[in-house]
Amino acid sequence: MLLILKPEAKPESIQNLADRLQSLGFIVQDILEEHTHMLLLAGDTTYVDCDQFARIDIVDSIMKVSEPYKLAGRKFHPDDTVIDVCGQKIGGNHFAVIAGPCSVESEAQILAVAESVKASGAAFIRGGAFKPRTSPYTFQGLGLDGLELLKKARQKTGLPVVSEIMNNNHLEEFHRDVDIIQIGARNMQNFSLLREVGQLKKPVLIKRGLANTVDELLMAAEHLMVAGAKDIILCERGIRTFETATRNTLDLSAVPILHKKTHLPVIVDPSHGTGSWTLVEPMALAAVAAGADGLMIEVHNQPEAALCDGSQSLTPENFEKMMKKIFRIREVIAE
Amino acid sequence: MLLILKPEAKPESIQNLADRLQSLGFIVQDILEEHTHMLLLAGDTTYVDCDQFARIDIVDSIMKVSEPYKLAGRKFHPDDTVIDVCGQKIGGNHFAVIAGPCSVESEAQILAVAESVKASGAAFIRGGAFKPRTSPYTFQGLGLDGLELLKKARQKTGLPVVSEIMNNNHLEEFHRDVDIIQIGARNMQNFSLLREVGQLKKPVLIKRGLANTVDELLMAAEHLMVAGAKDIILCERGIRTFETATRNTLDLSAVPILHKKTHLPVIVDPSHGTGSWTLVEPMALAAVAAGADGLMIEVHNQPEAALCDGSQSLTPENFEKMMKKIFRIREVIAE
Amino acid sequence: MLLILKPEAKPESIQNLADRLQSLGFIVQDILEEHTHMLLLAGDTTYVDCDQFARIDIVDSIMKVSEPYKLAGRKFHPDDTVIDVCGQKIGGNHFAVIAGPCSVESEAQILAVAESVKASGAAFIRGGAFKPRTSPYTFQGLGLDGLELLKKARQKTGLPVVSEIMNNNHLEEFHRDVDIIQIGARNMQNFSLLREVGQLKKPVLIKRGLANTVDELLMAAEHLMVAGAKDIILCERGIRTFETATRNTLDLSAVPILHKKTHLPVIVDPSHGTGSWTLVEPMALAAVAAGADGLMIEVHNQPEAALCDGSQSLTPENFEKMMKKIFRIREVIAE
Amino acid sequence: MLLILKPEAKPESIQNLADRLQSLGFIVQDILEEHTHMLLLAGDTTYVDCDQFARIDIVDSIMKVSEPYKLAGRKFHPDDTVIDVCGQKIGGNHFAVIAGPCSVESEAQILAVAESVKASGAAFIRGGAFKPRTSPYTFQGLGLDGLELLKKARQKTGLPVVSEIMNNNHLEEFHRDVDIIQIGARNMQNFSLLREVGQLKKPVLIKRGLANTVDELLMAAEHLMVAGAKDIILCERGIRTFETATRNTLDLSAVPILHKKTHLPVIVDPSHGTGSWTLVEPMALAAVAAGADGLMIEVHNQPEAALCDGSQSLTPENFEKMMKKIFRIREVIAE
Repeated sequence: MLLILKPEAKPESIQNLADRLQSLGFIVQDILEEHTHMLLLAGDTTYVDCDQFARIDIVDSIMKVSEPYKLAGRKFHPDDTVIDVCGQKIGGNHFAVIAGPCSVESEAQILAVAESVKASGAAFIRGGAFKPRTSPYTFQGLGLDGLELLKKARQKTGLPVVSEIMNNNHLEEFHRDVDIIQIGARNMQNFSLLREVGQLKKPVLIKRGLANTVDELLMAAEHLMVAGAKDIILCERGIRTFETATRNTLDLSAVPILHKKTHLPVIVDPSHGTGSWTLVEPMALAAVAAGADGLMIEVHNQPEAALCDGSQSLTPENFEKMMKKIFRIREVIAE
Repeated sequence: MLLILKPEAKPESIQNLADRLQSLGFIVQDILEEHTHMLLLAGDTTYVDCDQFARIDIVDSIMKVSEPYKLAGRKFHPDDTVIDVCGQKIGGNHFAVIAGPCSVESEAQILAVAESVKASGAAFIRGGAFKPRTSPYTFQGLGLDGLELLKKARQKTGLPVVSEIMNNNHLEEFHRDVDIIQIGARNMQNFSLLREVGQLKKPVLIKRGLANTVDELLMAAEHLMVAGAKDIILCERGIRTFETATRNTLDLSAVPILHKKTHLPVIVDPSHGTGSWTLVEPMALAAVAAGADGLMIEVHNQPEAALCDGSQSLTPENFEKMMKKIFRIREVIAE
Repeated sequence: MLLILKPEAKPESIQNLADRLQSLGFIVQDILEEHTHMLLLAGDTTYVDCDQFARIDIVDSIMKVSEPYKLAGRKFHPDDTVIDVCGQKIGGNHFAVIAGPCSVESEAQILAVAESVKASGAAFIRGGAFKPRTSPYTFQGLGLDGLELLKKARQKTGLPVVSEIMNNNHLEEFHRDVDIIQIGARNMQNFSLLREVGQLKKPVLIKRGLANTVDELLMAAEHLMVAGAKDIILCERGIRTFETATRNTLDLSAVPILHKKTHLPVIVDPSHGTGSWTLVEPMALAAVAAGADGLMIEVHNQPEAALCDGSQSLTPENFEKMMKKIFRIREVIAE
Repeated sequence: MLLILKPEAKPESIQNLADRLQSLGFIVQDILEEHTHMLLLAGDTTYVDCDQFARIDIVDSIMKVSEPYKLAGRKFHPDDTVIDVCGQKIGGNHFAVIAGPCSVESEAQILAVAESVKASGAAFIRGGAFKPRTSPYTFQGLGLDGLELLKKARQKTGLPVVSEIMNNNHLEEFHRDVDIIQIGARNMQNFSLLREVGQLKKPVLIKRGLANTVDELLMAAEHLMVAGAKDIILCERGIRTFETATRNTLDLSAVPILHKKTHLPVIVDPSHGTGSWTLVEPMALAAVAAGADGLMIEVHNQPEAALCDGSQSLTPENFEKMMKKIFRIREVIAE
């Protein structure tokens, strides 16, 4: 960490500060760069809340240099993490697609979709039982009944289940019934939820928040790992920008950037990322070409009747066509 | 709601769609604007998830026209809401300042700060007992002990207590001990938390999320009100933009815009909004000049030793100086 | 265009306004949607500055419905535009790569790069003669000498030349010597430059501005077309967002969105879009997979010695490797 | 400047790089911070394009530490610049308001507006003769005739003239007839225009670009100063964000931040900053409370008939009322 000092800082004050920092356990180096005087702190800054240094009267600003994510970062864990869920792998050289409806609506619906996405090559079934709805007036999900239906779908098809947890009300059921617990974009910085879910030590899929940087996504993964989770999938799903032509702006450069910073698998959700089914295929293909370890795609057998997000869901037919191209793009990339 | 049709839509298909919509209970008007064909739906769209219409094959896009917030909006509630908490009022013509440290650290600290901010004219004491920390390694707050200390501060000074709830683990204690329950920016769209806190029917202070629009803030207030809460304070605290010179970009135009759309009081937090104590005063004065019903200011008696956010906290002396100017600006505005 | 009226608007005032608008030549329809009263204007709003309507006392807000880009949009020109420059085609089914150094530095450099990119399959050579530099202290480009060197490169390799024009100082030389005139992101809304360049009636490559929407990019193309240009290539090169891990956030969804709205070819510049050479290949492959009609890639034979943007340039060897994968991805997409 | 090295960098390679940098004239310090190895370069990096260092194979990333703006920054020019234009001062303790219509439409209009704003306390008259229009189909301004009318207004009222230059076509007329030459937001990084206008050595008002940081605004001022201009007024006019309730998001924290970084006066344009006349007053008052050295306000005697931006213009009556409050707020701030 660098403390950049104000130009008018007196030598005495600088010396006092250096002494104080040394007594806190830091190794302090005095540095002059062009006309700027700085103190470089070496030592473990992990447990210190360093913003307080910015407040010291002779300090103009601070710059953090080392990465704050020890467990999630590649520095200490250079090898790719490969996650194995009921035999389905993701990460390293393993590519996998998670597909299913935005929300579980009925047994017929979830079974039909599960069977068709499996036939098309999906490795996991997803479905929302508890929905985050911006409006308090719209469909909130089937709740625990929805989880039961997902279990039936798994029983029928063998596809492991991915479902989103909204809060800590049903940790037990999620622990028992769901194979990959999903934490949604709006909960990415719900730190107490991250702690409680991390303690379950199950695979977790965490979505990048609407306005969170990749570093913040990695810190959220760090929260999960400190709590005990090891198998974490990071998911890019679009960020909020000034552009209004799409619901979110899908940030595909997050894929190679995350691959560089972390050993955890990185997937992309082009359904929420674009909000429009006609954009899902080009963006899914682009995500695979960018090196994503997987995709999460919304598929519904009757999208125009869907109780949520119908406008971004693919029909099983469109999903089938898209999967063929996806595997071909993956071949080119994976060489 | 307007459904804008694709140019190639055939008259038959348009008629079929119009019939279907009428059977759903809407009044449908066929409209031709320049070269664009549209169907206008009149009727209550509140309970319908309308994105599915965007998916209909002949529909190009949809435009919503009416406001989705019935309880929070001024349309049905034109008069300003005035919130009365233990005799302290906010909203309408009543201006109030909430002040206190980012987190409660000790009895001595919270009592000292409470007394000095009261002497400077603050109407409420704030302090965090449960902290949202981006890093899992830093101070997480005193928890329930923190709430106890806030109660002591209230006992001593008479200042009502504002404190942030992070999750539903301590709803009972918050209901019993806290006068205004704060929902933080990162929880603005934690819909299940909004529902549970709303059901407590206590005053709530809800902070705008880092990347949430004012309409989304109003929908969050709507969630609280549907659940039963009536006394809601909206708080602008800065949004995320490309500018890196500040932690967030304080969006003061949210104040007059919200005043136009809603009857609820609107306050500003320039401490989190700027992240830097030297910017707090100018932005606080600006917020008052923009018509804010109140402010939330971080004050710490020893900011450089603060266990969180020290860089944005004011000393009691600086707070005192600032409050004098704040009341004078308020006089000019309130005429 | 819709004028949404204020709830308190009196019937008389509404009638007066409707009469005034009719006298201006509009067809006015009175519409009631749920509780909102609106006036719908049909008629040509192209030449009217409609923001003034927002100011009328009984008008609450306005909503524009039809697209403002007549020449650039697909509505009146449904077929893809194919641009032919000295036999090299781009658009429709034709994919092409534009490659070369950020700036032309010497004859040896530009000839070496031109030959190697041609061997790798590039269709056009690019190079900056006049550079936009954020700092007034750094290399500003070789100017007209740079254009001369690009001509030599064309002579040697047959590759048509793409180069950026900064202002109207050398319109004649650009008209004579450059095959595709490039307008940079910062000049996307330099309307007088657009007019003057459009009047040259040469092929133009226009880059999306750092914070411009796709609709604004299309309006810039509209400016060029109104002035006389027909062959316009649109280029996505990254937008400004809150993410600081990259120089810009490459918005690949702009590719399918633009393909839907316009008949003009759409290419992607992953070099400026990412600012980092290690991200160029994954993003270039992603762009092709998203359906881009082409790419613009920075290639320099000695990037660490480059006088500008060296950090994002590929070596000829890396470019060669990347091009092989690019053509394979293109095959999958183009079926 | 800091070069942060990759973890796998070998001691030999680091030594070679250090030697190379020293031969380029830098003083190189080898630094180890926690687990991160860095090279600190001291020396004048002003004329070197340092991005090339990011490309060196053992370099992971670079961090610039010192400010790049020598002339515009306070470091070498700690005292406030006070600009004197025909006796009207702005900057330091001098506050001034620039007011007038968005565009000059007729002699009657500009004279009427000039007289009324002068009576209300404005110090400068503004008016556009050359307009930047997003659409090629709308009013483009009166051109040189517009400048003539502004001169008449100055003759009649004594108010110095502020008008926007769009390109270098009329440098001579602007030099001769306009007192403060305005460079619009979209031209903030039109570096060749900045150079040509700077060479005129006249007062310049430069507007912050839609998506430019305050540092980039200061670099634009630096361009003007390197070219010869001394009297530069910086203007905040709103930035582009995800919020759609306003045309732009007015960033008032730019005022105190700029005051800290630069000696140049800082004003605010709440008219373009909000796009809506009902928001202009609260934001103007907020800007004054934030410490702005001045304001730029659009005033039109018949806004609903205005040929541009009518929705954000104030009537002379509203301007008069607002100015009274503005001077009262200024009194409180200026003590």
